[in-house]
Amino acid sequence: MAVKVLINGYGSIGKRVADAVAKQDDMEVIGVTKTKPDFEAKLAVEKGYKLFAAIPERKGLFEEKGVEIEGTIFDVIEDADIVVDCAPGGIGKDNLENIYKKYKVKAILQGGEKAKFVEDSFNALWSYDRCYGKDYIRVVSCNTTGLCRTFYAVDSVTDIVKARVVLIRRGADPNDAKRGPINAIVPNPPTVPSHHGPDVVSVVPKFEGKILTSAVIVPTTLMHMHSLMIETTGTTRDAILDAIEKTPRVFTVSAEDGLNSTATIIEYARDLGRPRYDLWEIPIWEESVNVVDNEVFLMQAVHQESDVIPENIDCIRAMLQMEDDNMKSIEKTNKSLGIK
Amino acid sequence: MAVKVLINGYGSIGKRVADAVAKQDDMEVIGVTKTKPDFEAKLAVEKGYKLFAAIPERKGLFEEKGVEIEGTIFDVIEDADIVVDCAPGGIGKDNLENIYKKYKVKAILQGGEKAKFVEDSFNALWSYDRCYGKDYIRVVSCNTTGLCRTFYAVDSVTDIVKARVVLIRRGADPNDAKRGPINAIVPNPPTVPSHHGPDVVSVVPKFEGKILTSAVIVPTTLMHMHSLMIETTGTTRDAILDAIEKTPRVFTVSAEDGLNSTATIIEYARDLGRPRYDLWEIPIWEESVNVVDNEVFLMQAVHQESDVIPENIDCIRAMLQMEDDNMKSIEKTNKSLGIK
Repeated sequence: MAVKVLINGYGSIGKRVADAVAKQDDMEVIGVTKTKPDFEAKLAVEKGYKLFAAIPERKGLFEEKGVEIEGTIFDVIEDADIVVDCAPGGIGKDNLENIYKKYKVKAILQGGEKAKFVEDSFNALWSYDRCYGKDYIRVVSCNTTGLCRTFYAVDSVTDIVKARVVLIRRGADPNDAKRGPINAIVPNPPTVPSHHGPDVVSVVPKFEGKILTSAVIVPTTLMHMHSLMIETTGTTRDAILDAIEKTPRVFTVSAEDGLNSTATIIEYARDLGRPRYDLWEIPIWEESVNVVDNEVFLMQAVHQESDVIPENIDCIRAMLQMEDDNMKSIEKTNKSLGIK
Repeated sequence: MAVKVLINGYGSIGKRVADAVAKQDDMEVIGVTKTKPDFEAKLAVEKGYKLFAAIPERKGLFEEKGVEIEGTIFDVIEDADIVVDCAPGGIGKDNLENIYKKYKVKAILQGGEKAKFVEDSFNALWSYDRCYGKDYIRVVSCNTTGLCRTFYAVDSVTDIVKARVVLIRRGADPNDAKRGPINAIVPNPPTVPSHHGPDVVSVVPKFEGKILTSAVIVPTTLMHMHSLMIETTGTTRDAILDAIEKTPRVFTVSAEDGLNSTATIIEYARDLGRPRYDLWEIPIWEESVNVVDNEVFLMQAVHQESDVIPENIDCIRAMLQMEDDNMKSIEKTNKSLGIK
């Protein structure tokens, strides 16, 4: 029997999680919530999702706009086996305290929430077992997810001594006409190391003190990019390429093939026919993979809107104890989405 | 008596070099050249520079457009003590072989030319003495100049074991409406390490094998940015801040002061009343300066259009043996431009 999943917050992440859950044969979407009756709310209804007001006081707003809702979140939450919270960063923690714990329903928060508010931090490759059967878990951010996957590949063939990463972050998502920068590079945070290293450690405690990151924001909407420099105890370029090949949800792209920027990588995802051109996997530039003095160099991109989506699916399976082998869950999720 | 300087190519770099030379009491601009009679050519004449056609065959073009020229480069080159070549990258090498060597005139090429075509590579802090009295020298690129200055500061208080740098490069200059990217991050080169490390080594041979760089291009026009991670034999944050304070042409800026991006840094240069808002110095974010396990972290920006300008002035002094103390030349140049 399919487990019942409620998506609280049908925005950039929520709508993607809903569509991914709907594709699983062991899960069903029992509802999605919205705070306001905008185009996303209308499309949710058109798609056949049961829509609920995320904030009871705003129920009237939906009725005024003629957007059909089934009630409020409190009319559906007791039916849910798990809630995937996709509220904006910082709100998830409030929802956890005020709603999920009160209603004793398992909940997944997203990477915008801090590690300390939940029992553990999830990545399907690294912490599936630790999150197995747990009640309140956080799927780490898009950037941390991308780093965790690549470190998994490298860690599978050598030991990481110290990794240095510079994150070149997109300024805003494609649908966001409010944020910038339009013409500037912004050190963000201006302090170094940034919080991204510790966030990886929340998933992989053995990397404590070994991941040093800095980050800037640049005027682009399509993807983040990472430049990684990973000191190891010893490896070769071929071993790393082989490890990437064997690691789920990472793959190599070649600049020589025309995949020479985040723009052409997104064009590739569009040509693949991906829904919303989502690229759930982390593309790593083949040309950039190099080993000098046991140090692995590589550059990768991260589709900020979608790489965490399959992780949310696997996290549901772990928390509801639906599958005890993480690689089997990953394979099942990948197959459902069309990830090779 | 003032030395006679000819500027071959009155474009982004050339017009700035001309204005800087004009400010020196020991140098004079005997002419500037242009390949076409555009607005820059017209402004050069209005400013009082003697204009020459860089390509003799195009002399008629200037006459057609009513832009007054004094002749072609070959009418003035024999009067020059030195030529500062500011032609587009790759052309300088041809000019060196076809013109400067033939006319036996000393010449400075810019960073777009390769190190192997000249006798040595110039940075006022590192290689002034080596370039003293030489005939054909290259002032290294804006990015390499920025790195050389910061490494000088760090090297003045500790030994650099290995430095890793990620360069986040501006996509185009502000006046360039042809180039991009508009919405993408481009690994450029897609191979790692990039050529920027070896370019630093062309100035500082003792860093051979110690500078590992990667580079991306992003959609911005104002400045480049660098994230530096420099392993040392041991130092402190205070020592590094002190070294930055004492090193010419680098200074700290504070994000807390509002100088939190390349955009606000350029606004600062505009408010300072700098010509063309040029920022000849390298701003380093104070908040980013950190030392963890003897590794220095910092982030800096580079005004690609102008940081090499004072270097060209010092390079003239070195090549024409006008001043044998590099620090005195630097001080003289700085004073003339208004650099503190």
